Amino acid sequence: MSKINVTIWNEFRHEKQNEGIKAIYPEGLHAAIARGIAADDLNIRLASLDEPEHGLTDEVIQSTDVLIWWGHCAHAEVRDDIVAKVLKRIHEGMGLIVLHSGHFSKIFKAVTGCSGSLKWREAGEKERLWNIAPWHPITQGIGEYFELAHEEMYGERFDIPRDAEIIFLSWFEGGNVMRSGFTLERGYGKVFYFQPGHESYPNFYDENVLRVIGNAVRWAKPVFFREMCAPCYPALEEIRSVDTAPKAAVLQNADGTNK
Amino acid sequence: MSKINVTIWNEFRHEKQNEGIKAIYPEGLHAAIARGIAADDLNIRLASLDEPEHGLTDEVIQSTDVLIWWGHCAHAEVRDDIVAKVLKRIHEGMGLIVLHSGHFSKIFKAVTGCSGSLKWREAGEKERLWNIAPWHPITQGIGEYFELAHEEMYGERFDIPRDAEIIFLSWFEGGNVMRSGFTLERGYGKVFYFQPGHESYPNFYDENVLRVIGNAVRWAKPVFFREMCAPCYPALEEIRSVDTAPKAAVLQNADGTNK
Amino acid sequence: MSKINVTIWNEFRHEKQNEGIKAIYPEGLHAAIARGIAADDLNIRLASLDEPEHGLTDEVIQSTDVLIWWGHCAHAEVRDDIVAKVLKRIHEGMGLIVLHSGHFSKIFKAVTGCSGSLKWREAGEKERLWNIAPWHPITQGIGEYFELAHEEMYGERFDIPRDAEIIFLSWFEGGNVMRSGFTLERGYGKVFYFQPGHESYPNFYDENVLRVIGNAVRWAKPVFFREMCAPCYPALEEIRSVDTAPKAAVLQNADGTNK
Amino acid sequence: MSKINVTIWNEFRHEKQNEGIKAIYPEGLHAAIARGIAADDLNIRLASLDEPEHGLTDEVIQSTDVLIWWGHCAHAEVRDDIVAKVLKRIHEGMGLIVLHSGHFSKIFKAVTGCSGSLKWREAGEKERLWNIAPWHPITQGIGEYFELAHEEMYGERFDIPRDAEIIFLSWFEGGNVMRSGFTLERGYGKVFYFQPGHESYPNFYDENVLRVIGNAVRWAKPVFFREMCAPCYPALEEIRSVDTAPKAAVLQNADGTNK
Repeated sequence: MSKINVTIWNEFRHEKQNEGIKAIYPEGLHAAIARGIAADDLNIRLASLDEPEHGLTDEVIQSTDVLIWWGHCAHAEVRDDIVAKVLKRIHEGMGLIVLHSGHFSKIFKAVTGCSGSLKWREAGEKERLWNIAPWHPITQGIGEYFELAHEEMYGERFDIPRDAEIIFLSWFEGGNVMRSGFTLERGYGKVFYFQPGHESYPNFYDENVLRVIGNAVRWAKPVFFREMCAPCYPALEEIRSVDTAPKAAVLQNADGTNK
Repeated sequence: MSKINVTIWNEFRHEKQNEGIKAIYPEGLHAAIARGIAADDLNIRLASLDEPEHGLTDEVIQSTDVLIWWGHCAHAEVRDDIVAKVLKRIHEGMGLIVLHSGHFSKIFKAVTGCSGSLKWREAGEKERLWNIAPWHPITQGIGEYFELAHEEMYGERFDIPRDAEIIFLSWFEGGNVMRSGFTLERGYGKVFYFQPGHESYPNFYDENVLRVIGNAVRWAKPVFFREMCAPCYPALEEIRSVDTAPKAAVLQNADGTNK
Repeated sequence: MSKINVTIWNEFRHEKQNEGIKAIYPEGLHAAIARGIAADDLNIRLASLDEPEHGLTDEVIQSTDVLIWWGHCAHAEVRDDIVAKVLKRIHEGMGLIVLHSGHFSKIFKAVTGCSGSLKWREAGEKERLWNIAPWHPITQGIGEYFELAHEEMYGERFDIPRDAEIIFLSWFEGGNVMRSGFTLERGYGKVFYFQPGHESYPNFYDENVLRVIGNAVRWAKPVFFREMCAPCYPALEEIRSVDTAPKAAVLQNADGTNK
Repeated sequence: MSKINVTIWNEFRHEKQNEGIKAIYPEGLHAAIARGIAADDLNIRLASLDEPEHGLTDEVIQSTDVLIWWGHCAHAEVRDDIVAKVLKRIHEGMGLIVLHSGHFSKIFKAVTGCSGSLKWREAGEKERLWNIAPWHPITQGIGEYFELAHEEMYGERFDIPRDAEIIFLSWFEGGNVMRSGFTLERGYGKVFYFQPGHESYPNFYDENVLRVIGNAVRWAKPVFFREMCAPCYPALEEIRSVDTAPKAAVLQNADGTNK
């Protein structure tokens, strides 16, 4: 069985610019995720914003089965043409996992069609993530809930589409709730959004967070890659109505006289 | 009761460049729709691609309740910045009705997150549209089905999101089927896609097609306009977990030594 | 404009058997709801378990536009034949609003196809109901959230179908979350479930609870009543494949020799 | 890896009472399905209406992973208590595959909450089933469509719930369309409805029909069996609002004086 090619994309700015964050994720949070989900069936690469083509060359995109995305302060710097290539590849089958502040990334907005708006608060409060899809591949090994001692609050109303299949619902100590894990299908590709992962908390070392991300990678693995096309398609049955077209009536109508 | 402000946007190229199509829609198909759905509760304006800003100035967008969109051969010429403004306004509450070949327009792709791919065939064949949502406001006055003597075939698999609420399912003489009418909600705005309306057939004079579009306009009317925002939100409950943050443990984890 | 015929059905046992509950709802909680939502466009009747046919005679069912249902300790005593009649009428167009402990009623299970299982706790704790569908008719007049000082906790995982359109998400002081308001469509009828309303708290006097119920009544009003039928339907197109049936091949296959 | 326990339930009346049908399925159509999907990973049993307890004893239900259901003329004879046991087991994780005329069975109505109404016609016409979920496990090995030379027409409007994920859309020669394959989730169990399989056509020998049923069995295999429960659940957070209950205000409100 061939390995799943995973590319973990990180904006990778906070970890360079802020000493406190650097202390938590010295090599970048993408590196922490990579170590945390490392397994024999995964072939993991890292990519980040400041690499040429954001590390997402055509070759990388074409050879990625599942793309993990973390961005925050520099969403606007991500090139539109690269987002378009990523979106096209999702439609062809590539999986996408968007983490935390990626809810405002160009690729999240592109797959959801929504604004991604929500409430937020940095107060180091407790988050309790309730597992409401216990049979789903993404929640295997997770109990009825798990907790994070400190996470940024993200709260409703979260502007996401109605076909979001809710996997986790979160309770926040400060009084908010959040659809904090959900799946979508777009084209032939599978998408998972997962709320945890603020840069100033060490939650990408949390075993439940890592287990969810690892499960999501296997779930989002493409069944196949297939180009989306719009073929001119031959008739499978005889078409008999062609010659009877009421052309005269059409022109009369087009004169506007009887409408 | 105030009127609904409707803007009908048409690419408006075929009608100028092709004599046969001009004969059907001499003033453009948008003008035919406008005449066909005219009513006391509607205030209708026209806009088209070759006008300055495609006829979609900020003032027009801000004062539109429901936008109807028809495009085909020049999707790529529609400016990205204007599409972004239209999308933002949909999120704030504006209704959108996408017709026929608009399935490949930038705004359709933006709201669906999908490619819009489908099969097609220009064979003048019969289409029978089955009404599968008889209680829906969009189908009031429509029987269990209606027919178009000649329409371009659009067939499955149609790449649309799973939250598409199906209103019409079409049978085509040549052997294809199509989810030919469906609704979506994006942000605070309502979206309706409707398959009929190829430029070379006079179907925008058909009373059922016009009734559906007219119904859809009333259905898609905004409940309100409200800007999407992402507020920093104060805690509603006391947060007691702050001081207990295991900072030391965090740094240990960040060293990578125990992961 | 004709009035909406609303029937409020209550098990009406707690209020007779428990002095504390009788003190809150001396005439039954259905009477409190009736007074609380009374308006010129509503024609409200009461019905309860211990009346003949549970107060749901054929005449009552046939003349009800929207049925409100509260039950708790005596779900099993509700006659199956009456539930079947109610379900049939919902399929024909009647609206249904299920309150609180009605999540385990026969009619709730019948329309959802699910078990209705959930977590619960009677601790008089605070519930905060977040409005996540601000454009929906059911939430008009409700802000981004409202609170109940004391309510029974109902918590996830709540076993409901995936087409539940979530209207409210609740935060409970004790650490749980709940999809506390959602809509469904079944047949031609609309269904709304709303979590508040434990018999030992006076929440059917709360103005937000009453506003939501009143809004839901108008939303669930039938567009029409239409009997569900399964007609033998004539062909609309010529069927040419009949005579070519490979009967011999069929029989061969049926012999099991070549399968 | 343990085998999947499949029970194929058939009403098994037509095959005994009608010579033409007996000629097609001499041992019953359930036996034909069993032979058609036989494979090393499946452990298949047969059950039918006229056996004691319809062949669905507690032991059989408890040891079934996926139940296939075909019924037609005797839906009403299926015992309610056995349907209730089957439904309970679905909620606990058992898969269910309902075939053809099973759309009017008690178990189909129980899981959908809908009436299952549709149009029908016995005219031996051609059906073309379009695969609109090519990535789905149920359609693997199926091309973009497959055809049945003769099948009973089932047509829209088909009364099914909105969370039906559509897998197949059918075109019928006589002019109808049908959502002819769809999935649901109820409780922890997966459900698939598949339209082909009228008793008077040999379509349970068709390799595509058999492949779809075989795929569906693997897809519907339980992730786990877990009893649905409704626990009284302890608070995870301190509840501070209890003592502040405005009891006096409550009683005042209950007097109805200020409402």
